[in-house]
Amino acid sequence: MNNGSSDFRVSRQTWHFPNDVRILSTATAVGPKEGEGPLGALFDKVYDDMYAGQDSWENAERQLLEDAVNLALDKANLSGQDIDVFFAGDLLNQNITTSFTAEKVSIPLMGMYGACSTSMLTLANAAAQINAGYANKALAACSSHNATAERQYRYPTEYGGQKPPSAQWTVTGAGAAVVGTGGSGPRITYATIGKVVDMGIKDPFDMGSAMAPAAASTLQTHFKDTGRNPNDYDLIVTGDLAAVGFPILKDLMKMDGYDLDRVYNDCGLMVYSPDQEVFAGGSGCASSAVVTYSYIMDQLNKGKLNKVLVCATGALLSPVSYQQGNSIPCIAHAVSIEGGGS
Amino acid sequence: MNNGSSDFRVSRQTWHFPNDVRILSTATAVGPKEGEGPLGALFDKVYDDMYAGQDSWENAERQLLEDAVNLALDKANLSGQDIDVFFAGDLLNQNITTSFTAEKVSIPLMGMYGACSTSMLTLANAAAQINAGYANKALAACSSHNATAERQYRYPTEYGGQKPPSAQWTVTGAGAAVVGTGGSGPRITYATIGKVVDMGIKDPFDMGSAMAPAAASTLQTHFKDTGRNPNDYDLIVTGDLAAVGFPILKDLMKMDGYDLDRVYNDCGLMVYSPDQEVFAGGSGCASSAVVTYSYIMDQLNKGKLNKVLVCATGALLSPVSYQQGNSIPCIAHAVSIEGGGS
Repeated sequence: MNNGSSDFRVSRQTWHFPNDVRILSTATAVGPKEGEGPLGALFDKVYDDMYAGQDSWENAERQLLEDAVNLALDKANLSGQDIDVFFAGDLLNQNITTSFTAEKVSIPLMGMYGACSTSMLTLANAAAQINAGYANKALAACSSHNATAERQYRYPTEYGGQKPPSAQWTVTGAGAAVVGTGGSGPRITYATIGKVVDMGIKDPFDMGSAMAPAAASTLQTHFKDTGRNPNDYDLIVTGDLAAVGFPILKDLMKMDGYDLDRVYNDCGLMVYSPDQEVFAGGSGCASSAVVTYSYIMDQLNKGKLNKVLVCATGALLSPVSYQQGNSIPCIAHAVSIEGGGS
Repeated sequence: MNNGSSDFRVSRQTWHFPNDVRILSTATAVGPKEGEGPLGALFDKVYDDMYAGQDSWENAERQLLEDAVNLALDKANLSGQDIDVFFAGDLLNQNITTSFTAEKVSIPLMGMYGACSTSMLTLANAAAQINAGYANKALAACSSHNATAERQYRYPTEYGGQKPPSAQWTVTGAGAAVVGTGGSGPRITYATIGKVVDMGIKDPFDMGSAMAPAAASTLQTHFKDTGRNPNDYDLIVTGDLAAVGFPILKDLMKMDGYDLDRVYNDCGLMVYSPDQEVFAGGSGCASSAVVTYSYIMDQLNKGKLNKVLVCATGALLSPVSYQQGNSIPCIAHAVSIEGGGS
């Protein structure tokens, strides 16, 4: 079955899921700033402080991920025991939010790391496992927290370092999706896995510019592999290119013959309103996760959107590689989510 | 095909690969101490200094991973373009060794994090993708480096901090495997995915004790799921339990009715000789990778071993979680590798 192409292998980078793979439920939990944003009413749980009732920011991030996972399970009337495998990741060193959450819910863990592309990296792999029959039900989830990310990637927040306008604001939140077959939820039909793209950009306060070429590479591959074009989708979102990367991606796609104007938005621009102080916009694993698993799922379930392509974008830098003068390797993974009700 | 069990799903945690999934080639690259150990002659590349010709330890670790990947490709007469997907991970924050290597070889990347369990986490997922037909050829790889790990997890090496005898020595090395179908290489037949096990142990200088219960959980699940027992294997290895965890695992398994005495060894004990100063033994992603992808593959290919179960063990701690007083979550993933020549 592995000669050239199979039912599942469209090309080197694109997988097809013909076996009725569906999102059975999703849930999101966020911090106060995200709750005050334009999608605030669609999040399942909004904390009014950054500690989420915990004694450290790291524990707060765990609380968010646990909330998202448990709420997604509740909505599907499932418990952790009903889930075969947990594809998850976060931004913290050693994926520690993920590991502690996996222990609490007692689901076999596939730890993944894709920086802010983790939402679709985990969803693509969960869909692949369900489609092939390795698992009956799978969970895909990820999280980020503004204060844990600031401490780890940049400066202690007490230092009060200034940032340029091209900097982004790490979203405090978590999103989870239960994937299985049957029912009437949106279908996961294709995934396009990204290659690492490194254009030599070294400025960690301009991740949008660094990530846009990776998003372009994955989107172009997706369109070529599937024979689709941007107009086949009702909405195409990137994860966190924000105000700087957004127009760069449109230009890069236009140079390759793809006009995104009508259908394109960015989760990092959707999660906050322009009057919130977030520099160029949102970033972090949670950016694409909380937008996809709240607003986009809501629109798909209501029939207001029918075909959506979520292209989650990740800047794979580390503070050590940055301090050692390395450029920022980037990646993007895209998942096509369709329908609902059929 | 997802009702209860499929051809591929043996149980919640165990997958079966009936579609002639084989290891087409493997390669290893190591540092000087590993080259001086009992398996030294079996490694494909041995560097005589820790810098491997680079200007930093982090770049040295990248060199090791690149070497392992390129040598594995060479042995299979393949180039990066022939490989559909690269499952890889390492110990460094943000998986940075993996990301830079993936960019160089230009293979679509699935970043994974399983600490020292990454060797079998990546091999299991590569096998699953091949078996289901998502990919024609896949690469699984991981790396660790003693000096990058010491700096990141413990103290600057210049500080000269003393360690207790239960501490372990992070293996400097990398291993890679090309997975596909056909040919005469060893078959990958089963994988058992671990759950996170946390027994409340908080001492990062005693990871063997922390990880042994995770290994026991995965091995017991593997035997129950497959109907096999330890005597069905010619060799069962754990990744890096070393001298402290080794007897604990044997005791835990005996309490559950499984006698490992005849067939059990630990890669962390196999990679160094007792007279090398490595405290309790080897650890790190590379411990199981360099032993499996050199000695074990060699024995399988020569017909001296026929059925091997590699249970890679990971301590998912982070310096931040340790400093915040958290215990050490652990995990283990097991892969059954069989035959060769048939």
